[in-house]
Amino acid sequence: MAKQEVILLDFWPSMYGMKVRIALAEKGVSYEYREEDLINKSQLLLEMNPIHKKIPVLIHNGKPICESNIIFEYIDEEWKDKAPLLPSDTYGRARARFLVDFIEKVYHNGRILLYTAKAEEHEASRKEFIDSLKLIEGELGDKPYFGGDSFGYVDASLIPFYAWLQAYETFGELNVGQDCPKLIGWAKRCFQNKESVSNVLPESLKIVAFVQQVRKIFGVGGEIDDPTNFRDLVIYDLPIGAPNSEYVLLTATFRLSSSFCLKCIGFNKSSIRFLAQHDSKDFTSTSNQEILTSPKPSGTF
Amino acid sequence: MAKQEVILLDFWPSMYGMKVRIALAEKGVSYEYREEDLINKSQLLLEMNPIHKKIPVLIHNGKPICESNIIFEYIDEEWKDKAPLLPSDTYGRARARFLVDFIEKVYHNGRILLYTAKAEEHEASRKEFIDSLKLIEGELGDKPYFGGDSFGYVDASLIPFYAWLQAYETFGELNVGQDCPKLIGWAKRCFQNKESVSNVLPESLKIVAFVQQVRKIFGVGGEIDDPTNFRDLVIYDLPIGAPNSEYVLLTATFRLSSSFCLKCIGFNKSSIRFLAQHDSKDFTSTSNQEILTSPKPSGTF
Repeated sequence: MAKQEVILLDFWPSMYGMKVRIALAEKGVSYEYREEDLINKSQLLLEMNPIHKKIPVLIHNGKPICESNIIFEYIDEEWKDKAPLLPSDTYGRARARFLVDFIEKVYHNGRILLYTAKAEEHEASRKEFIDSLKLIEGELGDKPYFGGDSFGYVDASLIPFYAWLQAYETFGELNVGQDCPKLIGWAKRCFQNKESVSNVLPESLKIVAFVQQVRKIFGVGGEIDDPTNFRDLVIYDLPIGAPNSEYVLLTATFRLSSSFCLKCIGFNKSSIRFLAQHDSKDFTSTSNQEILTSPKPSGTF
Repeated sequence: MAKQEVILLDFWPSMYGMKVRIALAEKGVSYEYREEDLINKSQLLLEMNPIHKKIPVLIHNGKPICESNIIFEYIDEEWKDKAPLLPSDTYGRARARFLVDFIEKVYHNGRILLYTAKAEEHEASRKEFIDSLKLIEGELGDKPYFGGDSFGYVDASLIPFYAWLQAYETFGELNVGQDCPKLIGWAKRCFQNKESVSNVLPESLKIVAFVQQVRKIFGVGGEIDDPTNFRDLVIYDLPIGAPNSEYVLLTATFRLSSSFCLKCIGFNKSSIRFLAQHDSKDFTSTSNQEILTSPKPSGTF
């Protein structure tokens, strides 16, 4: 086979990136990992994913593949001779795709547990989150893996959650082990038996620290103090009227997730306070100019 | 081959449903079409798609497949001997999946043109919408179809837009033919050459009337008058405190789209006024009880 050039543009805490890294490891594909600074995105990322400008992006022999599930299926199809990850039967594939889609929705909805402090929101979200995990656990049944006897697409898509588990439990006040013991058993099995998993997942405490710093930026669980403290995380010192404000605002989005955006909710002399919003629509319809010249907070939501 | 039982649960204006119907027509699959009354969903829909409770659902020999893109790929894989719809090469498949995903985001974002009346929102959304269509048109290039010489996955996913075009142009004040002439040429080609398309797409004016009635319910382009006028559309007479209020609120969601929900923004003596919201998250965390007992509007957003 001709020499393959495989490059992955990624960001370490991304659950979407992790699943792609696990797929590459399962297939034994050698690749160059390039950590993206999402505050200052590489020219390569902007060229390879001009529409979404998001990680992860797989570049295979110069051709970009974007969106984690599409990358995952590409990897499974392109390196099909080793470790098949999607089921071989048509209905099994449809079922796996459905579950992966559902897992992504659970990730998405679960963020409210990480990034808000309102007890009443937590109560409803906590129940919904645990109910969803129980539903997923029901799909596992008594099988060792979602894929049956072998690790597969659903396993690789859900296991990044294990790296985030401590963060969910800490900030969302959950006890997943108590509510979903089989799921935790499955996660430990993946972690212990699969080097593709244990080599990829970052330490839980590193994720907890990451979430803690993002919460500080949102003023959740503590007031925003000096935004320069967070230089290496999501947004950094952002004096009002700075020429790169729009840039920072737009790119900060991806520190959290593909569909999260940040919305300005207030100013002080030297910083802007943000809240996360699930749909980037509203944000993009607010021009940067409005944000920078408005004398008052643009509202809460 | 053993006799196949194929049932499709669907709702006529759904672009997601249309793409599935086109795939079935391309493959020459005989199936039973069952129109869902989304105000009063069938027991079969609730059983077959217990997680999302959404159309379309394909039931093949008793087994449900949910989510339009997953259904589409299932159809292409299951009836693979006729009219292949996804590209045969790995990279082509990834590219098609990416474009289909992008088209869904365009549909989603374009709804603001249909269901809001604020000129300033329209201006930004109109530009974004047309820019997205131009980008898609660029992918078509000079090929007869997105699939090259033959009609495929991207074509089937985008062509339902043609049925909605007049509604977008009417309420969004667009002229897509002027901005994207090649795209309109492609749409006409699909419609003229493919019976799978012309037999499936509803008349444009029927969609315009549908959108018009939904707008009335939202109070866009005219005040809400007597909600009983809309009995057969989205919501009907909803006296405050009626025992079936929650039922109507929750199921009304699906009249519009999978991820739209309705949020109460005000009362009068005999009716409740709604606005559409893109993410059902907030809505589901507001209990029906709160809506029914609150003496004042629950806020705008």
